[in-house]
Amino acid sequence: MLLHDIVEPSAPARAAYKWRGLASDLSALGEAEKLLAARPQLVFHLAAIVSGEAEADFDKGYRVNLDGTRRLFEAIRAIGGGYKPRVVFASSIAVFGAPFPEAIGDEFLCAPLTSYGTQKAIDELLLADYSRRGFFDGIGIRLPTICVRPGKPNRAASGFFSGIIREPLAGQEAVLPVTKTVRHWFASPRAGVGFLLLAARLDTAQLGARRNLTMPGISATVGEQIEALARVAGDAAVKRIREEPDPVIQRIVEGWPRNFDARRATQLGFRADASFDDIIRAHIEDELRPRPS
Amino acid sequence: MLLHDIVEPSAPARAAYKWRGLASDLSALGEAEKLLAARPQLVFHLAAIVSGEAEADFDKGYRVNLDGTRRLFEAIRAIGGGYKPRVVFASSIAVFGAPFPEAIGDEFLCAPLTSYGTQKAIDELLLADYSRRGFFDGIGIRLPTICVRPGKPNRAASGFFSGIIREPLAGQEAVLPVTKTVRHWFASPRAGVGFLLLAARLDTAQLGARRNLTMPGISATVGEQIEALARVAGDAAVKRIREEPDPVIQRIVEGWPRNFDARRATQLGFRADASFDDIIRAHIEDELRPRPS
Repeated sequence: MLLHDIVEPSAPARAAYKWRGLASDLSALGEAEKLLAARPQLVFHLAAIVSGEAEADFDKGYRVNLDGTRRLFEAIRAIGGGYKPRVVFASSIAVFGAPFPEAIGDEFLCAPLTSYGTQKAIDELLLADYSRRGFFDGIGIRLPTICVRPGKPNRAASGFFSGIIREPLAGQEAVLPVTKTVRHWFASPRAGVGFLLLAARLDTAQLGARRNLTMPGISATVGEQIEALARVAGDAAVKRIREEPDPVIQRIVEGWPRNFDARRATQLGFRADASFDDIIRAHIEDELRPRPS
Repeated sequence: MLLHDIVEPSAPARAAYKWRGLASDLSALGEAEKLLAARPQLVFHLAAIVSGEAEADFDKGYRVNLDGTRRLFEAIRAIGGGYKPRVVFASSIAVFGAPFPEAIGDEFLCAPLTSYGTQKAIDELLLADYSRRGFFDGIGIRLPTICVRPGKPNRAASGFFSGIIREPLAGQEAVLPVTKTVRHWFASPRAGVGFLLLAARLDTAQLGARRNLTMPGISATVGEQIEALARVAGDAAVKRIREEPDPVIQRIVEGWPRNFDARRATQLGFRADASFDDIIRAHIEDELRPRPS
């Protein structure tokens, strides 16, 4: 497995396979070609510039999220000679923009309200057309907001959804920049990994020409997230959440979807977490308990 | 008015305004900047490579329809300093792909089944994001198939919809490459001009962030088109239509939409023709009758 990122990828924990890491800018000319040198039969494209940063830096977001993706797709196409890898593209529910129906169905329009969402929606269209043309065998999966995201905060405007669970569980203070009535759509890293692995082996003939799928998830308000935290970890954890309203983040998040009817993906076998409590428990098990090395 | 095309634009008939023509490739570096030298307050972007050609030449379609449009948008953005023209973008119902509901509403997804439709859908997303960012004041209008299109046949797969009316009215034979049950969505050139002019002056605050609108039209089968031709021009005209099935065109057209509920555009004042008979009469009046010079 070749792991690629703009920064040196860290070693996968307990990898049962050979891997090497490569750090470079996918949007630079010629980089995609290097990544494909070994003709991988499976490509996970999880890039790249997150929502807050793509909104703050218009050029960078388009250069990496749109042009970088297109260069990867073009590099695959250029190889030809029957090379037709499975391409699993991590899209986002940010392709949708308000106003929304009560639950967003599989035929609802993509009308993003951020540049990040626009770039992901464009990548989805390219993925579908390149697949239709037979240049590769693509599937785009619209991930719910992954929560609890392990590691350090990033510049995603959605970062606090994880922060208000992760930091208190680690004994640290977390900032809540939005009101508790904000409703959002979540999947655990476990569920996210499950989506990616199923997307890698799914019979794409079932998809027809519509190659992009909304993944199932859990719909919860920030208030419900905090109640789940209280149930799983007690009130002491909840007290570490400090409310500090940020109108910019509030506005961005208000344009995001809250609830979905992810019927197609569910019928294809994609599975969400059972509850937000389970999402928190999975985080504790996977990230906070000592593991045999 | 500056008229721009890849070929030398012909003189507008009875123009009551000053104009000049310019022939160049919009997708070439630096061309968009030249077109904006006079800082037009209104830009109609009607380009470019039509559906049949964009399907036959993948690179050309993306270079012109996607990169050319993006270069135009970027050139407007680069001017800055408060320059914020109205940009009216001619999109297409080819942004939609089967399977369809009985009538496609304003919240139906864009899942194109051609590279042309993909390029238009991407341009729509860019237009909405550039408008949201305040780089220009854009509106995308999804034109029905314009019928009866005057002049010579082009390489659009939809060309026959006009040909089977235009050629018989001119005393010439027309080829019908699809079955008579094919249903499609039409507007006359008169209605199309009306759409463009209203889009140029519409208060775009009414659009919110959803800058792309399906225009109203007339839904008719090829059989109904031919019946209308018989009513307006008699059976002699109908006899000039020769059926010559083309599986490639049949397949492309089967992926196209048939009927819409264009509620938003109708509420904003966009008006379709009253019937297909009226579409044929408009063609006769505008193209076939001698006019005072």
